[in-house]
Amino acid sequence: MKQPRFTGLIESLPAVVPFVPPEALERNSGRPLRLRLGANESVFGASPRARKAMAEAAKRISWYGDPESFLLREKLAHIHGLRMENLSVGSGIDDLLGLVVRTFVETGTPVVTSLGAYPTFDYHVAGYGGKIHYVPYRNDHNDLEALAEMAQRVDARLVYLANPDNPTGTWYNAASLKEFLDRLPGGCLLILDEAYLEFVLQPDGPAVDAGDPRVICMRTFSKAHGMAGARIGYAIAAPQIVTAFDKVRNHFGVNLFGQVGALASLEDPEFIEQVHALVEHGRQDYYSLARELGLRAIPSSANFVALDLGSEAAALSLLKTLMERDVFVRRPGAPPLNRLIRVTVGTPAARTELRKLLHQLAAAKLIPSNDVQAGA
Amino acid sequence: MKQPRFTGLIESLPAVVPFVPPEALERNSGRPLRLRLGANESVFGASPRARKAMAEAAKRISWYGDPESFLLREKLAHIHGLRMENLSVGSGIDDLLGLVVRTFVETGTPVVTSLGAYPTFDYHVAGYGGKIHYVPYRNDHNDLEALAEMAQRVDARLVYLANPDNPTGTWYNAASLKEFLDRLPGGCLLILDEAYLEFVLQPDGPAVDAGDPRVICMRTFSKAHGMAGARIGYAIAAPQIVTAFDKVRNHFGVNLFGQVGALASLEDPEFIEQVHALVEHGRQDYYSLARELGLRAIPSSANFVALDLGSEAAALSLLKTLMERDVFVRRPGAPPLNRLIRVTVGTPAARTELRKLLHQLAAAKLIPSNDVQAGA
Repeated sequence: MKQPRFTGLIESLPAVVPFVPPEALERNSGRPLRLRLGANESVFGASPRARKAMAEAAKRISWYGDPESFLLREKLAHIHGLRMENLSVGSGIDDLLGLVVRTFVETGTPVVTSLGAYPTFDYHVAGYGGKIHYVPYRNDHNDLEALAEMAQRVDARLVYLANPDNPTGTWYNAASLKEFLDRLPGGCLLILDEAYLEFVLQPDGPAVDAGDPRVICMRTFSKAHGMAGARIGYAIAAPQIVTAFDKVRNHFGVNLFGQVGALASLEDPEFIEQVHALVEHGRQDYYSLARELGLRAIPSSANFVALDLGSEAAALSLLKTLMERDVFVRRPGAPPLNRLIRVTVGTPAARTELRKLLHQLAAAKLIPSNDVQAGA
Repeated sequence: MKQPRFTGLIESLPAVVPFVPPEALERNSGRPLRLRLGANESVFGASPRARKAMAEAAKRISWYGDPESFLLREKLAHIHGLRMENLSVGSGIDDLLGLVVRTFVETGTPVVTSLGAYPTFDYHVAGYGGKIHYVPYRNDHNDLEALAEMAQRVDARLVYLANPDNPTGTWYNAASLKEFLDRLPGGCLLILDEAYLEFVLQPDGPAVDAGDPRVICMRTFSKAHGMAGARIGYAIAAPQIVTAFDKVRNHFGVNLFGQVGALASLEDPEFIEQVHALVEHGRQDYYSLARELGLRAIPSSANFVALDLGSEAAALSLLKTLMERDVFVRRPGAPPLNRLIRVTVGTPAARTELRKLLHQLAAAKLIPSNDVQAGA
């Protein structure tokens, strides 16, 4: 019998799994996780208003959600001082990244990103046959100068930048971003992934002009809004890009829970302020913990902190040790970030447990300190 | 300033809207709909178990859903007597149709469908540059013989068939489908859209062998399970196809509400039986109504009934009349189906209201009867 005939691109792609989920770790070990601090989920949950709206939506869930997400886009337009035509709602940033890549990338299209940045962008580019040009991180920051140079050199159609960055937590202010944008070649679109924007300690205003046709901003309800499981996010883009999305997007792809939850959460900005303060408290806890352990922590503008283990071997070793103890954290795979362990801000109780555990491991010489290494 | 550079395919696509949603109708008219009977949503809602599970999930919605949908796939494998490797979960059939088209269709790939069948398949094929070959309906049925002939003639890589059919509600039994499958050319994959399967009055067992590599079955929780707003469905396919999906699908695309709701709903088969009985009652009501009006109703195996107005002009006229009265139903656009008005089974109260309204319209000579036309 003849086999189904996949596209040439599909045949050429490797079978990869972008992320091993915490549930798979639990299935593999046969034990529940003790600490789930690897996916940057918000341990402070969703706004009570959003939770109530979502719980009530279960009563009318036999109806499709509005494929235009009209009420949500109307609210977002008001908040951002934009037109609704600047907004496209999707099932989280992953979905929107897939959409923007599909809209701009065909076989061989050059795109630029940092080596070790959010891998789902790379995954989508591969999935549409694009050509990724990587720029190494420098001092645990996206190297804006080198990214712009690379974009010029390869005439990139897309450049991806997470700000705040994942997995480092570093951040660029508006002036730096504006300068970066001006350095990109004409006809190059910047994908500005602002998933963690609400966690910036002292934001200095919008990094780019709303609706600037050179940029597409991505925002999510998965992080500060605490609604990762509801799968909803949005893109701010020029109307011509939103119109292009409408030509191919899955119009009925966004679920009603996410729509009503997002709308309710936007009506509770005080909750997001609380989460911001709680996350900052947690980051300070992690900085203290790092100091106690003699490790460097990268100052973070996100809801996680990257601890610098000094070497790939040390980071790998700690990751393994933590996994054996049912602690879920992440280690970036690409150098020079592969010496980092990224830990999501946990609840106060989880942070206390982590502190205790890491001190035990240090006492058992299972964590090398940067102090020691600095002297080596 | 240089413009963003869309792909050639995106540039070539028209700006279309696959479906105008009921919410947009309400926004356009400035009035709420009186009867929402156009999207085949289940007026009998979701299982109480599913609603409870989804409402409770709001408490832990800050966690991502499991990208492997392991528990749901495990349950589905058990129900269908399949391996988990035969199952892929997506955000409803629309999402899965996009995925299968992406996996098999590239520029110019020939595919076959009925002219006037579910348009979202066509939408995705256009969105990936495929070439659609249409086969007209015959006697309000998908013309299996002609579909197989066309597939042979153009060496189709995909054939789409909804069974029960949308928008006619007609249905083929297992023997007919098996014969159809055997007539398709080698290397042709049949997409069997079984969104409405739970509404078949006297099903005669699985139409195809589970995991037959020539078929991909699509199922949804949007219809009988009453969870359209939760966006969840699944595909049953050969493991090599599921593996191919995993190379490009949005792994974190399915929301947690949908996952827990689907699982809970599967544990309440009695509810689905009740819905089946209620829908059958509603269909009989519509058949009676059609007889009273002197219209032909197509016997339906789905949760809607197509009324035959006899001509495109008559159907268009009735659609307009109903829309002016804030009644949302659908009229297929393609001949010969464009003489039909498709009406979702409503609640008993909604059916009573519709009956009253249609009798008023008939009395005002706003509905032509087939009886009259048969004599013309």
